Amino acid sequence: MSDSPPLPPADWPVMEPGWVWLCGAGPGDPGLMSLHALNALRQAEVIVHDALVAPHILGWARPGAELVDVGKRGGRPSPKQHEISLQLVELARAGRRVLRLKGGDPFMFGRGSEEARTLVRHRVPFRVIPGITAGIGGLAMAGIPVTDRDVNQAVTFVTGHDPSGDTPPLDWAALARASPVIVIYMGMRTISRIAEALIGAGRAPGEPVAVVRNASLPDQQVLETTLARAAADIAAAGLSAPAVIVIGRAVLLRQALEWPAMAAGQPTRNPEPPGPGRPAEAP
Amino acid sequence: MSDSPPLPPADWPVMEPGWVWLCGAGPGDPGLMSLHALNALRQAEVIVHDALVAPHILGWARPGAELVDVGKRGGRPSPKQHEISLQLVELARAGRRVLRLKGGDPFMFGRGSEEARTLVRHRVPFRVIPGITAGIGGLAMAGIPVTDRDVNQAVTFVTGHDPSGDTPPLDWAALARASPVIVIYMGMRTISRIAEALIGAGRAPGEPVAVVRNASLPDQQVLETTLARAAADIAAAGLSAPAVIVIGRAVLLRQALEWPAMAAGQPTRNPEPPGPGRPAEAP
Repeated sequence: MSDSPPLPPADWPVMEPGWVWLCGAGPGDPGLMSLHALNALRQAEVIVHDALVAPHILGWARPGAELVDVGKRGGRPSPKQHEISLQLVELARAGRRVLRLKGGDPFMFGRGSEEARTLVRHRVPFRVIPGITAGIGGLAMAGIPVTDRDVNQAVTFVTGHDPSGDTPPLDWAALARASPVIVIYMGMRTISRIAEALIGAGRAPGEPVAVVRNASLPDQQVLETTLARAAADIAAAGLSAPAVIVIGRAVLLRQALEWPAMAAGQPTRNPEPPGPGRPAEAP
Repeated sequence: MSDSPPLPPADWPVMEPGWVWLCGAGPGDPGLMSLHALNALRQAEVIVHDALVAPHILGWARPGAELVDVGKRGGRPSPKQHEISLQLVELARAGRRVLRLKGGDPFMFGRGSEEARTLVRHRVPFRVIPGITAGIGGLAMAGIPVTDRDVNQAVTFVTGHDPSGDTPPLDWAALARASPVIVIYMGMRTISRIAEALIGAGRAPGEPVAVVRNASLPDQQVLETTLARAAADIAAAGLSAPAVIVIGRAVLLRQALEWPAMAAGQPTRNPEPPGPGRPAEAP
């Protein structure tokens, strides 16, 4: 393992043969990966990874490690979830040291719970390594704080579609009243229906919305729009998945906190963005 | 910097004098810290940290770095938030390389947005480094997935108290209907009132609840209880902050996914825990 990256001094867990480590790689930027994830990359013999895991991260794998891509890629059919889970079981039973590496966090709409349950059912020993989820860390990389004392005491994360591809069977009217900030994963195809439901339940059509694509990566794109215009603006901008959508006044704080732009020398757009006591302005 | 821990090969950001890096250290386990956080520790001349940041992490600081503890510690009064923000401004203006290191994620009920806004107002350049939040990663270390395809398509994170110490002014009745899984930060003192509000809005008194204290650390404690009994059971167990409370059927999955116990050789409690179609059983 002499070629794989070093770790700071600590009592790092050892990956035993026949184990699966279920690990989140974070939103994309390799620097947002955890030290435990790096420790896993140094030891794994097989890495079963999603399309969302950046090549730079896979470049830190133990030399000779086998990379198995189970992500969706242009045109090619991707393996079904159940097949992926069973593949993990088979690799472990063959005595391999298996790293299941996912984008974001494995338990945050990542199907990690499903995979872990399959491992338990087949008595495969495993470890879980959480990761930074795009709905928090990816938004931070766009200058959007998911919570702010002056904006919200609650934030809700939802998946944009259920297994059939439709919007999930949530009580959208209750959600509209319950949560000032709503973060949607995998919602690019259903945002028009979700926005309609939220507006129907009383959320303002002009409520600020941001779409963050490829969060934390060099080609990160951010679209600021409103609830009423989100679907049309996403289409007009040609934005596609993977993206995180955030709804709520937290988006206005980006006017002050767009730190990557400021770090690159751009001036602050608005050092005193509208707080909860000031009316939201449509962009 | 020869004594500070190494990093894998990448184009790591350089901390310039007069900058503040606002960084999350994760739930506690040093291995759950990001590589960017380690890169920050290697460079910072001053580290302004919370009580929640583990000593092991601070041990990875650049030799000679000044450590400023602004966390709450038994008896001693802690600095007010505004004072901390202004201290960051002053340190940056003095030309120091400043790391503001917080437990969890800086934007997830971490007052990071408030500090960033103060930095902007005072034209102090800054960078944000997200972290793994205890409400996701800490629960994962207790074997509780915040989402599972068979359990919930939404999860809501709330703070247990508003600035006055009371429960925050949320529409708890709407929240009870909107979000199958609710994760409460800083809710140990208000859980009885929150549980009452949720039960009043129709959530089952026997709904499963877990309390995870010192999540991800060697002295992690987990209490499984119910909505009706949570406050009494917390008191009886003598549990105190810092702890994350999770409400919902996700807690039942711990019967299968309590991986740290299984990794230590204990058998699975229940490889087929109750799914959404099966009635919850009070513990």
